[in-house]
Amino acid sequence: MCEASVYLVQDGKEELILENVDELHKEGDKIKMINLFGDQKVLEAQIKMISFVNNKIVLEKAG
Amino acid sequence: MCEASVYLVQDGKEELILENVDELHKEGDKIKMINLFGDQKVLEAQIKMISFVNNKIVLEKAG
Repeated sequence: MCEASVYLVQDGKEELILENVDELHKEGDKIKMINLFGDQKVLEAQIKMISFVNNKIVLEKAG
Repeated sequence: MCEASVYLVQDGKEELILENVDELHKEGDKIKMINLFGDQKVLEAQIKMISFVNNKIVLEKAG
């Protein structure tokens, strides 16, 4: 089993949003993420990149 | 390190697209995926769900 850290890229900078993320769901214009500890975050964003090698997911603002 | 299998959901059925996927990139309206063996696939789709628990990524057709 593996988890990822989720980052939001804005103005070329990556901001850490949530660590140990197990699941992401697209819900309309939003991304809902849930981590190992049951913490949830919802962001108005879209998935730009997933790297399983680096356990990393990068989101960007839509539009 | 971990990899995932990528599925495309259409008409409620999941079709296996590529296994052992290391990386996904959003490129405009398309998703480019690359696996452990360097195989690449590009699909006009968007990411619907990622489950690290099940090593699974589900895509859906845009629109």
